[in-house]
Formats: sequence, structure tokens, C-alpha cells
Amino acid sequence: MSSTPLHARVADSFGRQKLLSTLGARLLRVADGEVEIELPWSEAIQQQHGFAHAGAIAAVADSACGYACLTRMPHGSAVLSVEFKVNLLAPAVGERFVARGRAVRVGRTIAVASAEVVAHSVGKPEACVALMQATMMRVDPRNGAAG
Amino acid sequence: MSSTPLHARVADSFGRQKLLSTLGARLLRVADGEVEIELPWSEAIQQQHGFAHAGAIAAVADSACGYACLTRMPHGSAVLSVEFKVNLLAPAVGERFVARGRAVRVGRTIAVASAEVVAHSVGKPEACVALMQATMMRVDPRNGAAG
Amino acid sequence: MSSTPLHARVADSFGRQKLLSTLGARLLRVADGEVEIELPWSEAIQQQHGFAHAGAIAAVADSACGYACLTRMPHGSAVLSVEFKVNLLAPAVGERFVARGRAVRVGRTIAVASAEVVAHSVGKPEACVALMQATMMRVDPRNGAAG
Amino acid sequence: MSSTPLHARVADSFGRQKLLSTLGARLLRVADGEVEIELPWSEAIQQQHGFAHAGAIAAVADSACGYACLTRMPHGSAVLSVEFKVNLLAPAVGERFVARGRAVRVGRTIAVASAEVVAHSVGKPEACVALMQATMMRVDPRNGAAG
Repeated sequence: MSSTPLHARVADSFGRQKLLSTLGARLLRVADGEVEIELPWSEAIQQQHGFAHAGAIAAVADSACGYACLTRMPHGSAVLSVEFKVNLLAPAVGERFVARGRAVRVGRTIAVASAEVVAHSVGKPEACVALMQATMMRVDPRNGAAG
Repeated sequence: MSSTPLHARVADSFGRQKLLSTLGARLLRVADGEVEIELPWSEAIQQQHGFAHAGAIAAVADSACGYACLTRMPHGSAVLSVEFKVNLLAPAVGERFVARGRAVRVGRTIAVASAEVVAHSVGKPEACVALMQATMMRVDPRNGAAG
Repeated sequence: MSSTPLHARVADSFGRQKLLSTLGARLLRVADGEVEIELPWSEAIQQQHGFAHAGAIAAVADSACGYACLTRMPHGSAVLSVEFKVNLLAPAVGERFVARGRAVRVGRTIAVASAEVVAHSVGKPEACVALMQATMMRVDPRNGAAG
Repeated sequence: MSSTPLHARVADSFGRQKLLSTLGARLLRVADGEVEIELPWSEAIQQQHGFAHAGAIAAVADSACGYACLTRMPHGSAVLSVEFKVNLLAPAVGERFVARGRAVRVGRTIAVASAEVVAHSVGKPEACVALMQATMMRVDPRNGAAG
């Protein structure tokens, strides 16, 4: 993990997301307009057939989208999800999943991002298991708690 | 909680969803074409501003949609999420959240459902915090593990 | 058609939507938070199997959503579509279609609406052929051309 | 325009889409998993502010998604839209718009595609005005009318 100012800014907010630590997710990479979040497979994120639950996949994809947009917003901004849509392309089977969020367009108030979630398993090619398209909103947190 | 055959059928599958127990969710009500899932507030589901994370809200709404459709599918069917879209209408603040899933149209293969997630707090009117529209798919589990 | 101020306000904007007249759509009903638009069947809106094209269905549903929100925005506001998602529930067969838009939540900047599109045919029960969930944005038109 | 068998197969279906000719759209390019549709600006597709209406943009994006999937389906297949979601990224201003559909995953029954719609104006850089994520379904037309 790098320790650029951009990374620090996202990492600070990420650390306060209890759900992401509940799921075991961690911040993998932060670049201009791009954020990757890793979700290791664990029993805690399972759905009824033993795959990762769509809700867990959506949680990391949504956060990757939000943070990808945040990297292109003015300092002190916070980002909220307006809405997201996710297609589950294949059963989420793997040892770990990586959500790659990418800012598509960041306006003054509204931002649009997309994310793909890729499953990794030793000895197998990576497989895209989900595709998200999301709308985010920039907010000015009055209390100084950015991100 | 009732103990109708319909309820038992959903409860059996629900009990195998580890993510839902990780989040603290529980099955509240099962009726023909309608399922309610409760998510009590806890630190474990928080996002960075102290609200419930959109991913946790999406997880219970998605499950409520899927099970609402399952109640109208032939016995032995299982249901998978094809895609869902969720609008976050207001910050998810409350003591507990209830996701109310409703089957809109259940076809032979494809089903469509919608859900709203309502926040409850003592002494306050209930507030709708999220709205979902989802597409589900019926599958015939070969191994007999329905739901 | 009524001639309330609310109706006049929507009708004025509706009249400037060339696409809607290209499709043959007309404004049916305007109420607080609710707008109905009618789309008569014609060859001009057909897709390759002889049904109404999803794009035509989406056009009237999107407009019904936008105007439903506009009825709850301050005078002089204009409304733009941020995004919409539409499920096609059944082949769009009928003599006429009615898109019923309903404002779900209208905030200062962002609004959320839903719409259903119902097909009507003489001698048959009405059938819901599409369901939309949409996000709208309020804008202040500088040039005074509201709506 | 090429005259490959793949192109001919899509063009045949495209020619039966009356809505697309009503809007003035034409088939620009067909390749394996990729289809481009052009929509020239005209008054007929305008919304109330003089931009192209979101419904017209959605119509060409939806068709580009559907045909992109069709190129990867067995001969004799037809494709229907299950649902689509479109973000309007910027006002649709331009002399012509090009919807570029791309098949993301084509399964036995369900297919997922994405599309971007780009605006072209002489002397200006191209601008992405819309982003779509869509779910399609393969059907076996009994009457032999494929596409």
C-alpha cells in the first residue's frame, strides 16, 4: 500500500466504515479516479448456496465507486451514494474478490462511477462476477468529518 | 413469527445465509408474494458517517426481494439475483430497519420484485430510506438444496 | 383534461418535448406528485417483433417520472433526468399505454420517482408492462424557460 | 457498412424496428460482441430544453446492447430487453450521437451488456453523454422471425 496524500485521504474514511471491517474488506489501491477494495472469502459473507452474498459484493463495489469519485472531488468533500445498480454476472466463487471502482464523470454535485468485481482463485483465471453503475453525490460535511 | 409451510420454506433458506446473520438480520414475516426482513442498528453495519451502510441496506432488500419471489415459485425452486438497483432516499438512521420485499411479476424463469426499506426509531414517524427494483432468476438446484 | 395551474405548468413544458409528439404521446393527468402520459399504439413505435419498443416505453415513463417530481418543486424549477432503470415485465402489446409517474421523494436538489406503464386493450384486463425507478435533478434555468 | 453474415443478421432485425427509423437512427457497425448505432440530431428527438430526449438516447443504447448480445447468441435466436439502467452524464447536445453497445457476458438465457452514447459535433471533442448497463434475454422465436 502506498502512502500518498490521496491514499491517506481515502484510507482515513475507509477506516471509519465499520461494515467494511465486519466483512473483512481492505483498501487495496488508490489512484486518481480509481480505487480497489479487496474482499477475502469467508463464511461470514456467504449466501444460502455458499457463494458470496450479492449484498457483500454490492457493499465493496459501492464503496469502490464512492471513493473513486472522492479522489476527484475538492478536499473536505464527503461522498454519499444516491443509487447504484449491480448485475451479478456469475456465482461469486473465489478465494478473494477485488472491486475496481472507476470515476466516469465527477460534476459539482453529482458523480457517476462504475465498478467491476473480479474473483481470484489459485490456479484459475480471474472471473468478473459483478458489474456496477452508480450515482454519487458530493456533500460538504459541516462537522469536518470528510469522506 | 408464524410457522406456515411458506414461512418454513423461506426460513430454511434464510438460516443458511451467513451474511444475514453476520449483519444481525432476521426474518420478520412471510406471506404470499411478500417478505419482511429486519435489520437492527449496530455498529457492525455502519458506514463512515455513522449511518447504516448502503451495502447492508442493499443486502436485506435484495434478500427480501428474492424471497418474495420464491414464495410464488414451484416447490424445490431456488432463486438467484440477476441484478438490483437501489435508491438511497435518506441517511439510514434508526434503531431498526425493515426491508419489505414484494413480488411484482414471477415468470417461468425471470421474476421482478421491488422493496422498500423503512427506518424505525422510538418516538419518530417511520421513514423510507431506500427503494429497490430487482430482477431474480429461478433455478432448479440439482442437489436438492432449495431456496 | 383539467386546467389547474399545476396542469398548465406541466403542459407548457410537455408541449415543448418534440420527441413526445413524434411518438404520439399526450399528457393525460396532472396531480400533486402524480402525472400520467398516454402513448397510443402506432407502427412508429414498434420494435422488431411488433411490440412497442422499450425506448418508447422508457421515454413516456421517464417523462412521467420527471413531471411527477416537477409538481413538487418550487415554481420556476426545471427537471433533468439523472438516471433511470426500467424493467420490461411483459411484451408491450396493447391499443394504448399509460405511464403513471409518482414522486417518491423530492429533495432540494435530488428527487426520486417511480412509474408503471400499463397496457390497455378493449376486452382485456389492463396489464403492467414496465416498471421504472428514476433519479431526477432540479435545476434553476437561467433563461426563465422552466420545466 | 460491411456486408458480413453477422452484419446482415443484425441489419435484418434492425430494419424491422420502426421506432429506430422514426427516430432517424441507422446501424453503423456490427462486430463480434459490439454494435454501433448512429442517431443524427433532429427536432423530432428533442426534449423541452432542446437537447436529445433521454428516451431517444435510451432507445438507441438499448438496441445497441441487445444487438451486441445477439452477435454472440446461436443463429435463430431473438433477443428481448429484460431491463436497462441509463445514466445521463451530460446534456445530449451534438450533431449526431453514436451508441456503442458491448456484450459483457452472454449466457444460455441471460445476457448482460453495456453501452455508452457519445455526442459528436464538428470542431469539438467527442463527449460521452450516457452510460447504460442492461440485461437481455435470449428467446427462441417459434415463428422463425429471428432477431
